[in-house]
Amino acid sequence: MNRTHRAGADMRVAILGFGNVGRALARLLAAEGDRPAGRAGTSFLVTGICTRTRGTLIRPEGVDLVRALDSIEREGLLPGAEALFPSTPARSTAERFILECPADIVVEATTLDARTAEPATTHIMAALSAGKHVVTANKGPVAWHFRQLEASARANGVRLLFESTVMDGAPVFNMARRCLRGCSILGFRGILNSTTNLVLDLMEEGATLEDGLAKAREMGIAEADPSLDVEGWDAVLKTTILATVLMDSHLSPAEVHREGMVGLDPARLDAARNAGRVLKLLCEADGTGARVRLAELPRTHPFSIVRGTSSALTIATDLMGEITIFEDDPGPIQTAYGILADMIEIAEGN
Amino acid sequence: MNRTHRAGADMRVAILGFGNVGRALARLLAAEGDRPAGRAGTSFLVTGICTRTRGTLIRPEGVDLVRALDSIEREGLLPGAEALFPSTPARSTAERFILECPADIVVEATTLDARTAEPATTHIMAALSAGKHVVTANKGPVAWHFRQLEASARANGVRLLFESTVMDGAPVFNMARRCLRGCSILGFRGILNSTTNLVLDLMEEGATLEDGLAKAREMGIAEADPSLDVEGWDAVLKTTILATVLMDSHLSPAEVHREGMVGLDPARLDAARNAGRVLKLLCEADGTGARVRLAELPRTHPFSIVRGTSSALTIATDLMGEITIFEDDPGPIQTAYGILADMIEIAEGN
Repeated sequence: MNRTHRAGADMRVAILGFGNVGRALARLLAAEGDRPAGRAGTSFLVTGICTRTRGTLIRPEGVDLVRALDSIEREGLLPGAEALFPSTPARSTAERFILECPADIVVEATTLDARTAEPATTHIMAALSAGKHVVTANKGPVAWHFRQLEASARANGVRLLFESTVMDGAPVFNMARRCLRGCSILGFRGILNSTTNLVLDLMEEGATLEDGLAKAREMGIAEADPSLDVEGWDAVLKTTILATVLMDSHLSPAEVHREGMVGLDPARLDAARNAGRVLKLLCEADGTGARVRLAELPRTHPFSIVRGTSSALTIATDLMGEITIFEDDPGPIQTAYGILADMIEIAEGN
Repeated sequence: MNRTHRAGADMRVAILGFGNVGRALARLLAAEGDRPAGRAGTSFLVTGICTRTRGTLIRPEGVDLVRALDSIEREGLLPGAEALFPSTPARSTAERFILECPADIVVEATTLDARTAEPATTHIMAALSAGKHVVTANKGPVAWHFRQLEASARANGVRLLFESTVMDGAPVFNMARRCLRGCSILGFRGILNSTTNLVLDLMEEGATLEDGLAKAREMGIAEADPSLDVEGWDAVLKTTILATVLMDSHLSPAEVHREGMVGLDPARLDAARNAGRVLKLLCEADGTGARVRLAELPRTHPFSIVRGTSSALTIATDLMGEITIFEDDPGPIQTAYGILADMIEIAEGN
């Protein structure tokens, strides 16, 4: 493991994509000032922000994050970004940004196309090839191309981390990497898609699928394309990532059994309730494969109390038995913390 | 952090105390052969076992663990141990063993006297002073003397780890140390004493406190001295350790508010049930202090489904919000894994 960056040093960070996640990270870094840095022994200097339609900034001496957030929220544009790459099309802008922004870490937080995993995969490959560490909140590239991306990271002596792709900032991959040493992971099951979990709760109370989805959109938790949630794709991507990283599986998302909520008969919810059970969209993998399915759980099952946007993951191991992590009602700050935790992990060179 | 021992090297381990915990560790190491070692890149060689009344063994070339386990279970004595330190009294035997057994790590697993924390504290100090790492499953020394023990470990360039003192092998301290980097821990609450949790469950079903305790003893989960459980002392020790390590508190166990189950009126359980609530012995700490108390939780509370010997801990942080770990129905192997995880942590020199 290369230890180019020691505790106490500044790490320069380029933020690619400045939607909810990118802004939450900027807010976290701006609000905390040097604190997370101070606490973990490293400070982070954001040297650039690249957006698709709101301009791109490179400031080797450090971006004024408060001003950037203020400007993008009031004006819809990054401050003083108009002059950079004026005649370059959006996609090439990102590629030029990755190469030209002086950074140790590229935070990839662009909008996901879950089906093609683009343009995020191209961005990540470009950053790794340029010898930059990558932290991504994007499930698509990791679910579809983990082996290739990991090989590129290794070949370039850098790291690719993605804690926030599953359960936001809850330490899923970090825990498996650091805290279950010596254990073999035999399988897992989880409730990992907020939208479907919330919609199932609301449907149990009498709402229709459409009402439930409207509510999830209103709360800002649904994927931009709701079919990703209700068809089970988001859950499939997360299941693939977990199976790949925790169990060294070689499954592609297309090989994960996928049951979504499309056409769910409300009578099935009633029947479950009358039997003292609750319907949940379960993500699971074991020695026989991986699947996303609607499962009826008894009210005594730990997952039965995972309501709304909360999530849960049980990891089954040989030595430690079963261990479960719950994340309670996360918001954007938890996703941003997942990214920060990866940045700290890289800075510490673990 | 000293990195005297690199991955791949053997680490020599002296086991002090060969009751349930020590034997479970020996069984784990024996059954797995080189596997946990192989997986984590280090192998462990048990070079000695010291018991109070069943003999003491030192084998620099490695103890035959299968034979030792077999002999102690059939004969009540370690094999070929009769001749070692024949005229030395039990307490001095342990001290000679700590000094004379060639070991990098001393696993301290003697019987706990929770009130005096002895003889475990003396053993641990002796091992640290002799420049040996210590892994202990004993709550008493850590709860009563953490600062002093930690100072001694630092002064001697070794480590003192104790993952299995709270929630067996579930990675509580490891997670806080490795997976919440950059977060401040604001507080915690947990269900951490198996015996009282089981007894409360049984009392809810109509059993008396005495019936419940008899069942816990039958299952082998009650402390040797049941007053440690029912008076809340075990919970207080765990609460103290968590507050000290996670929140840098300077509370002694005597300063933790302690409510146990002594004299619990069954009517209180009935009243809770009739109100749709469940009575739990809660361990908690926040900015205002630390306490162990009987709390009425609604049936929708995640802790309401922690039944029998299972346990749960919620950690409240500034950046990550609340994260909860559940451990499902642990047995001796989980406690042994907690010790093994610490041994691996030491071997990796993190």
